[in-house]
Amino acid sequence: MEGLAKFPPRPTGAGEMFQLFRNGAPRTRASLVAETGQSRSTVAARIDALRSVGLLAPAGEATSTGGRPPSTFAFDPASRLALGVDLGATHARIAVTDLAGEPITQIDEPLAIADGPDRVLTWVAETGSKLVTQAGRRMDELAGVGIGLPGPVDHSTGRPVNPPIMPGWGGADVPAELYARLGAPVMVDNDVNIMALGEHRTMAPDVDDLLFVKVATGIGAGVIMDGHLRRGAQGAAGDLGHVTVPGAGDIPCRCGNSGCLEAVAGGGAIVARLRDAGAEVETTQDIVDLVRSGDVAAGQAVRQAGRDIGSVLAASVSLLNPARIVVGGILAGAGEHLMAGIREVVYQRSLPLATRDLRITPSEAGAQAGVVGAATLVIEQYLAPSSVDTLIAAKEDS
Amino acid sequence: MEGLAKFPPRPTGAGEMFQLFRNGAPRTRASLVAETGQSRSTVAARIDALRSVGLLAPAGEATSTGGRPPSTFAFDPASRLALGVDLGATHARIAVTDLAGEPITQIDEPLAIADGPDRVLTWVAETGSKLVTQAGRRMDELAGVGIGLPGPVDHSTGRPVNPPIMPGWGGADVPAELYARLGAPVMVDNDVNIMALGEHRTMAPDVDDLLFVKVATGIGAGVIMDGHLRRGAQGAAGDLGHVTVPGAGDIPCRCGNSGCLEAVAGGGAIVARLRDAGAEVETTQDIVDLVRSGDVAAGQAVRQAGRDIGSVLAASVSLLNPARIVVGGILAGAGEHLMAGIREVVYQRSLPLATRDLRITPSEAGAQAGVVGAATLVIEQYLAPSSVDTLIAAKEDS
Repeated sequence: MEGLAKFPPRPTGAGEMFQLFRNGAPRTRASLVAETGQSRSTVAARIDALRSVGLLAPAGEATSTGGRPPSTFAFDPASRLALGVDLGATHARIAVTDLAGEPITQIDEPLAIADGPDRVLTWVAETGSKLVTQAGRRMDELAGVGIGLPGPVDHSTGRPVNPPIMPGWGGADVPAELYARLGAPVMVDNDVNIMALGEHRTMAPDVDDLLFVKVATGIGAGVIMDGHLRRGAQGAAGDLGHVTVPGAGDIPCRCGNSGCLEAVAGGGAIVARLRDAGAEVETTQDIVDLVRSGDVAAGQAVRQAGRDIGSVLAASVSLLNPARIVVGGILAGAGEHLMAGIREVVYQRSLPLATRDLRITPSEAGAQAGVVGAATLVIEQYLAPSSVDTLIAAKEDS
Repeated sequence: MEGLAKFPPRPTGAGEMFQLFRNGAPRTRASLVAETGQSRSTVAARIDALRSVGLLAPAGEATSTGGRPPSTFAFDPASRLALGVDLGATHARIAVTDLAGEPITQIDEPLAIADGPDRVLTWVAETGSKLVTQAGRRMDELAGVGIGLPGPVDHSTGRPVNPPIMPGWGGADVPAELYARLGAPVMVDNDVNIMALGEHRTMAPDVDDLLFVKVATGIGAGVIMDGHLRRGAQGAAGDLGHVTVPGAGDIPCRCGNSGCLEAVAGGGAIVARLRDAGAEVETTQDIVDLVRSGDVAAGQAVRQAGRDIGSVLAASVSLLNPARIVVGGILAGAGEHLMAGIREVVYQRSLPLATRDLRITPSEAGAQAGVVGAATLVIEQYLAPSSVDTLIAAKEDS
């Protein structure tokens, strides 16, 4: 008969069964038979396969109704490692995590992204290897490397695209360069997406619709809808820095347009404004320090930046209807001034339905959000059903 | 052992197996055994269950390698019906579709939403029943009713929330009212979401990230990311009408703010502007007719509205990075003036990465998008695995 589709047999189904273990709860063979509707022999074979690659481990014995108590099995997150890398404009953080995204060991050092891909990626590889060794583990236990860069990344290739503050990085094949140095699969995303992922997974896993906004020298956002990071067609979703601020006037932006959010309310813009008024500030961190010292002009400047950010976030609230906006980045450290400015305009400019249950809060995951999110990128891919099946097939062939 | 989760057995798994048939391709028992890894007896039982509720039907015989040719089965979309209802401010369209969303019969009539829920929903029920009878079918063959309303809808309850152009509808229990009249499950969404759904399913099912914008008396959008409609926390995602237009000044809006997109570029705003200039226009359709007649001032006004809409869409492009923006609604009928204005500003105000492959096109599904999308709401729910399993369990109990 024409039109009858032919189907390859599904590899083993073990990868899909493994997903049931992801929440950490242990299971017996009998509970899996009940849960999946598959035969006892199939379930036993899949458990054996998952144990052979280390993803499942014995987890004690369940209560028996008589006779020998049944064995239980659980996800073993310690079986492999992930390397999470968070590169900012002037500093870098690397963490070795287990497969649950829990950091085992980490390091935070000054590093200029402007040193270019060769020097920076060499440093990443050397430091990452050192951390794995410090954790008492081997490089071949690495499930992969997740890395966040401070600029737009084409999600399909992992290459930076016209990154404004990353001279020399445009089009660099980051996945290939790091793979050559570390021998593990590499996933690249922009720093804001990995922060959003880290914040969501660690602090708000039950919030399905969340907008994470990073306010620092640059301004950007990570969009989580229906529980997953949404990247859009080229991985550029959440790129709020060059959205026009209503009423901001003709402040020129380095992108060639004027009135862009980053040119109006980014760290550089606030520094310039405070310097014009005679303050001694050079970096975004200086602004935070000045606000914390009680400087009135600095507090007012940050609050106004909050209002300008709020006017763009109000549009985002109308478009996305998030339940939560989380504000992170260096300037979020300037206390309530930034948050107050943001809240003032978002609640004023949004429709009642969209703000009825909206909460706007400062980041809680803090500096670790980036590395945890970067590791999560890798873990989600490594533990997906098809990857697990591939892992098992490779083990059987060896 | 403590912490061991207990699991109820999965109902039958037939609902999940049915999903394999959703693309329309026929299958044999043997191909399903290969595809699912389940035993021949399990597969046979599931096929019988799906046939018992009419979702599968014999589809001829497959080519045999010898002996009796195996039976093939395929999804039978004619087994049940869906009612898709698209209510606008001044007109209504109702279609009876099959379970593939194909309209069988439909009607389009003037109807004032301002007549209130009682009169309008009575009309919907009477007209829907009449259409089902005209199609030669029975009301108990109705899988459900999908309905789009011209205002914000709380997705969890199906009730309109402060709908500005729907006097008397605020908080109305539309699902209960229609269920009482029609005896079938009812799903409610706003008109723009159902248009987005209809446009996506019929014209661009392969585009994962799509923004549908309706430009009429009101302005709103439907957000599709990663292949699915995203509604946000309260179902209010895409509500662009009250986003501030940069540079629009102090034009007051009925929402209490000023400079809102709808107050600047909606049909009512253009009508007011053209009347001030001496033109004889009253409705949004009048604007379209005037533009089509070659009136220069009307063409310019629509192009400027396009620019204002474009400035809000540029922010949306930065936030969502869609691969396609589809422009529908009455004003999209004003030819290239609206599209040209939108494109001009979106391409000027967005970053290169986000617009590299972006296409901005007029709606192709046209007037049918709404009813097809409304029917799709119901069909997606009716054919979901758990619903199919419930259907089978009810059949077995009867």
